Amino acid sequence: MTTQLKVAIIGAGSAQFSLTMVKDLCLTQNLRGSHVTFMDIDEERLGMIFRLAKRYSEQLGSNLTFDKTTNRAEALQGADYVINTAYVLGHVVEANLRDLCSRYGYYHFGGALGPYHQFWLMLSVAHDIERICPKAWLIQVGNPVFHGCTLMTRETSTKIIGLCHGHYGYLEIAARLGLDPAKVVWEAPGLNHNIWLTKFEYEGKDAYPLIDEWITTQGEEYWRTHRARSTHDAQMSRGACNEYKLYGLFPIGDTVRRGGWWYHSDIVTKKHWFGEPFGGPDTHIARPYFVKNLEKTVAKMLAASQDPKADLVETFGATQSREQIVPIMDALSFNNAGQFQINVPNKNGKLQGIPENVVVEVPARIDADGVHIQDFTQLPPRILLNHIYPEWIEMERDILAFKSGDKSMLLWQLLNEHQTKSYDQAVVLLDELLNHPEVREVEEFEKFKPEELISEYFKYPKKI
Amino acid sequence: MTTQLKVAIIGAGSAQFSLTMVKDLCLTQNLRGSHVTFMDIDEERLGMIFRLAKRYSEQLGSNLTFDKTTNRAEALQGADYVINTAYVLGHVVEANLRDLCSRYGYYHFGGALGPYHQFWLMLSVAHDIERICPKAWLIQVGNPVFHGCTLMTRETSTKIIGLCHGHYGYLEIAARLGLDPAKVVWEAPGLNHNIWLTKFEYEGKDAYPLIDEWITTQGEEYWRTHRARSTHDAQMSRGACNEYKLYGLFPIGDTVRRGGWWYHSDIVTKKHWFGEPFGGPDTHIARPYFVKNLEKTVAKMLAASQDPKADLVETFGATQSREQIVPIMDALSFNNAGQFQINVPNKNGKLQGIPENVVVEVPARIDADGVHIQDFTQLPPRILLNHIYPEWIEMERDILAFKSGDKSMLLWQLLNEHQTKSYDQAVVLLDELLNHPEVREVEEFEKFKPEELISEYFKYPKKI
Repeated sequence: MTTQLKVAIIGAGSAQFSLTMVKDLCLTQNLRGSHVTFMDIDEERLGMIFRLAKRYSEQLGSNLTFDKTTNRAEALQGADYVINTAYVLGHVVEANLRDLCSRYGYYHFGGALGPYHQFWLMLSVAHDIERICPKAWLIQVGNPVFHGCTLMTRETSTKIIGLCHGHYGYLEIAARLGLDPAKVVWEAPGLNHNIWLTKFEYEGKDAYPLIDEWITTQGEEYWRTHRARSTHDAQMSRGACNEYKLYGLFPIGDTVRRGGWWYHSDIVTKKHWFGEPFGGPDTHIARPYFVKNLEKTVAKMLAASQDPKADLVETFGATQSREQIVPIMDALSFNNAGQFQINVPNKNGKLQGIPENVVVEVPARIDADGVHIQDFTQLPPRILLNHIYPEWIEMERDILAFKSGDKSMLLWQLLNEHQTKSYDQAVVLLDELLNHPEVREVEEFEKFKPEELISEYFKYPKKI
Repeated sequence: MTTQLKVAIIGAGSAQFSLTMVKDLCLTQNLRGSHVTFMDIDEERLGMIFRLAKRYSEQLGSNLTFDKTTNRAEALQGADYVINTAYVLGHVVEANLRDLCSRYGYYHFGGALGPYHQFWLMLSVAHDIERICPKAWLIQVGNPVFHGCTLMTRETSTKIIGLCHGHYGYLEIAARLGLDPAKVVWEAPGLNHNIWLTKFEYEGKDAYPLIDEWITTQGEEYWRTHRARSTHDAQMSRGACNEYKLYGLFPIGDTVRRGGWWYHSDIVTKKHWFGEPFGGPDTHIARPYFVKNLEKTVAKMLAASQDPKADLVETFGATQSREQIVPIMDALSFNNAGQFQINVPNKNGKLQGIPENVVVEVPARIDADGVHIQDFTQLPPRILLNHIYPEWIEMERDILAFKSGDKSMLLWQLLNEHQTKSYDQAVVLLDELLNHPEVREVEEFEKFKPEELISEYFKYPKKI
C-alpha cells in the first residue's frame, strides 16, 4: 500500500457531503496527501465541487490532489476507497411520486418503488469495483443502506461498510437529560434505521431511570412547548417515547421515524407524535422545507465556487466533522484503530436471531486487520418480533422483487401498506407508478426472471 | 404394549367428533377392542356421548369399552392416545367478542385474544401427559393447531401430532375439474391453515394447466352462478384463484380464508371474492349459520341418545370417515403403515426456510417406528416471504405474549390489524377486551413475566 491513497466519490455532486469529506481528509495527518476523484453524471455540480475542494484544500495547506470525471469506470481505476453517495431518483422525482400517490388517497407516500432504482445502481457499482479495483473498500452512504449493503454483500465479493448518522441520536438524549456526553456509555444495535438503545449508562450506572424521570416530570411540558429546530428533530418526541414504552427500549435516530403506521396516518396525527411545526421529517410540511434547505446550501456553495475571493475556510469551517468515513480509512490503512457504528454482514451471528447474510448495524473496532464486530447487549424478543423481523422480511421481499422482476411482489407490498383501502386502489396505483416516465427503469428489471436464484437465501434457519 | 389400547378424548362433548371416532374405531380391525375414556367439563354432553357411543358400538358388534369423567388427570391414567379437541372460549363467547369489536368499527373481528386461552389449556394438557402417561401420543385437533403444537412441542417432551381437514381441499379442485381423485398425485406443504399446492399431477402429468384452463374458460361463469353449498365452500372461489395468481401456487383448504385483508374488508368485498350467499366462512352471515348447524347436530344427537329405540347406525352411518386419527393409531400401534398429512416440528429442516422448532404441515409416512416426514416439493420464496414468514412471526408473537404476559404485545397485534384506524381505537378496544368478563382468564397470564425465558427461540439463523 502506498501512503498516497486514492479515494473515489461516486455521486460527488452531493456537494456538502463531498466538501465535508475533503475537510476531514485535510485535517487527518495520515490522509492529507491523498488523491480524490470526484465522479458524478451532473457536470455542473462536478465542476463546482472540484473547484471548491481544490481551493479549500490549498487554503488549508494540505497536499490533497483532485481530479473529476463523469465516467465511473475511470473513477474506480486504482481506487483504495470508493464512497457511494449517489441517489438515483432524487428529490424532485420523489415529490412527483408522492403527488401521484396522494391523488389516490395516500398521505405522504411514495409508492414503495424506491429501492429498485437504488439496487440497480448499487449493484453495478459493487460489480465494477470487483472488476476494476477489487482490493478497494466500498463505503456505502447512499440509502437504503440496509437493503443495498445486504444485496451487494450477497452478490459480490466487494468489501463493504455501510454508514449512517442515525446512531448520534443518543447524544440528543444525553443533551436533553443534561448529561456530559463524554461520560455516556451506549450501545444501539439493530438494522440500519432500526436501532435500539440496549445500553445507556452514565458514570457507570444505568441511565434509563433518568429517561423515565424526564418523561414523567418534563415530557408533557416539552412536547407541548418544544418547536423542532430541524425537520429531523424528533429524538425526544412523544412518538419516540411512546415507541420506548411500547417496545421496552429507546429507538435511536431514524428509527423514531419508522414506528408503526399509527404514528403517521395524517398530519394531525404526526404533529401529535412528532411535534410542531413539522410533525417529523416525513410530512408535506417538512420534506419541501428540507429540500429547500439543501438547495440553499448548494446555491451558497455555487456562489462561493464562482467567487475567487471567497474565503472558503471561513465559509465552511475547519473543524473535523463527526463523519466516520475518514477515521475508518485511517484505521484500515494506517492502523489508527477506532470504535465505530457500522453496517456489515452479521458474521458469526453476532446479532442473535438474524441470519449471517443480512447486514446489521453494530458497534465494531476497525484497524489494519479489518472490521471486528464487538460484543454488545442483544435486542429483546419483543423488538426482534415487532420491529426487526418484519423489516428483515420486507428487505427480502424488495430484493426478491428486484431479482425476479416479479410485479406481483410490488402489488403485494402496496396492498400491505396500511393506507391502502382496497385491492383495486392498489392495482390502479401500481399501474400508474410503473408507467410513470421517471420510474420506467423498473421495467428493466424484468429481464431477471428465475426465482430459483433467490432460494439460497432462505436456507438458514436450523436451530442451534 | 397390550392390544387393548386406551384412548382418552379431551373435550369429548364435541359430540359429532367423538362419535365419528368411535365409528372409525369400530370399523378398524386392530382397534375395535380399545377402551375409550370421554372427558369433558360439560356433564350433560358427556353423558350424551357416553350413552350414544356405547349403544352405537354395541349395535355394530365391536368390543369397545367406555367410561367417562370430568377429571382430566383421571382420563389420562394409562392412556396410549390422547385426543385433544377442546376449545376454551366456545362459539357464544366468540360471537360476543365480535359484537364488542364491531362496536369499535371492526367487521367480523374477534379482537386477537383467541390463542391465549387455548395456549393455557393445550399446555396444561401436554404437561399432564408428560406427568401421567408420558408414553402416550397426543393428537391435537383443537385449534390453533400451528400455534399450539409449536408451543407444546417446545415446552414439553410429549409426542404430538396435529391434525386438520384442510388438505382435503385438493379433492374439491379435482372434482371441479372432473378428475378422478384416485389418479391425482398432490403435495401441499406449509403451516397449518397455510398450505400450498406445490404438486398437482393427473395421470402422471402436471395438472396445473387444467386449473388455468378452468379459470379462463369457466371461472367467471362459476363465480357468477355458484352458490356455496356450505359456509366453507370456497376452494374454487374467485378469492382462491386470485391468491393463486398473486402467489403462484393454489392455496388449499383453510388457506383460502387467510388471504390478505383486502379479501375481507366488508361483506360486499367478501361476497365478491368468496361468492354468495355467505361470502366465505368468516362473515356475519356464515358464522351464525355454521354455529346453528352445529347446534342442530347436537340436538339430533341428544334426541337419539334419549330415545332407546333410535337406530343409531341408521342415523349416523357405518362407513369409515376420512379422519386420519384412527388410521394413525393403527399405524403407530400395529405397524399398519400409511401416508398422512400431519403437523409436527420441522425436524431436519424438511420445510426449507423454517426453523426446526416450528411445527409445519407436511406429508409423512407413519408406522410402528414413528413419524417419517417425506420429501416434497418446496415452497417458492414468494410464498415464504408473503405468506409463511409473516404467519410464523405472528405465531412467535402470540407465544411471546402468552409466556411473558406482556400486554404491549397484544396492543401491537391489534394496532397491526388492517381494520384499525388509530392508536386510540386500539387502546380503548384492548382495554374493553381485557376487562370482558369472559376473557378475564387472560389476566392469569401476567404471572409469566421473564422475557428471557423466550430468547432461546430466537437463536437459530446461522446460514448454512
